Amino acid sequence: MADLDPRLAADTEAIAQWPLSRVLLMKDAAYPWLILVPDRPNLVELFDLEPTDRARLTEEIARAAQTLKRLTGADKINVGALGNVVAQLHIHVVARFRGDPAWPGPVWGKAPPVAYPPEVLAKRLAQWREALA
Amino acid sequence: MADLDPRLAADTEAIAQWPLSRVLLMKDAAYPWLILVPDRPNLVELFDLEPTDRARLTEEIARAAQTLKRLTGADKINVGALGNVVAQLHIHVVARFRGDPAWPGPVWGKAPPVAYPPEVLAKRLAQWREALA
Repeated sequence: MADLDPRLAADTEAIAQWPLSRVLLMKDAAYPWLILVPDRPNLVELFDLEPTDRARLTEEIARAAQTLKRLTGADKINVGALGNVVAQLHIHVVARFRGDPAWPGPVWGKAPPVAYPPEVLAKRLAQWREALA
Repeated sequence: MADLDPRLAADTEAIAQWPLSRVLLMKDAAYPWLILVPDRPNLVELFDLEPTDRARLTEEIARAAQTLKRLTGADKINVGALGNVVAQLHIHVVARFRGDPAWPGPVWGKAPPVAYPPEVLAKRLAQWREALA
């Protein structure tokens, strides 16, 4: 496996390993939030992936988005590949709700993450690991 | 062709018609910014697309991102599908530079668009229409 950027590692919990991507939970209780990290070395931009891996990533993003929609009943799923702070290619898949703290703006760079109460985190991890296995 | 959301139509200029997507220039002189709109009816989420169209969209995003990188020498390309304001599925592909007005945050919801001087817009449209034809 490619090394995970230390900041990504610090901000997330592992959920699943898919054929291409690690699936991570972003530790921000303000939003149901997944991060996909394609497990190939030296990726920064989407176009750094081989086309077959890119197609695989797209299907993994769609699966993550659809599962998040089903699990949360979100009004909208936001998908983003920014990488202005952490260079290693990673894709955010975030469940958004009308009236959430950043709505209708983006979640990135808005406010520091809200810590999960440990029991809420444990429950979410258990549920999501099962749903996304 | 599927109808283009009136707000997308008002905020953009047409650049090209690709096999799946309309390619649009976002009229914000602060950032070199493309928007891809898959030309299918009733799309809101990425997972509303058929898998073959989704693969096609991914290749079109990669092409747009790579061309923007080449044209601008950007430090990073940001790709996002948000849709919190405009529901019609559309994908932002934005060239980002260290020190640009929103760096390292996202461009969305940051500040009102900066109008292009007409001659700058005309030149950019001509250049990008050729590069992205």
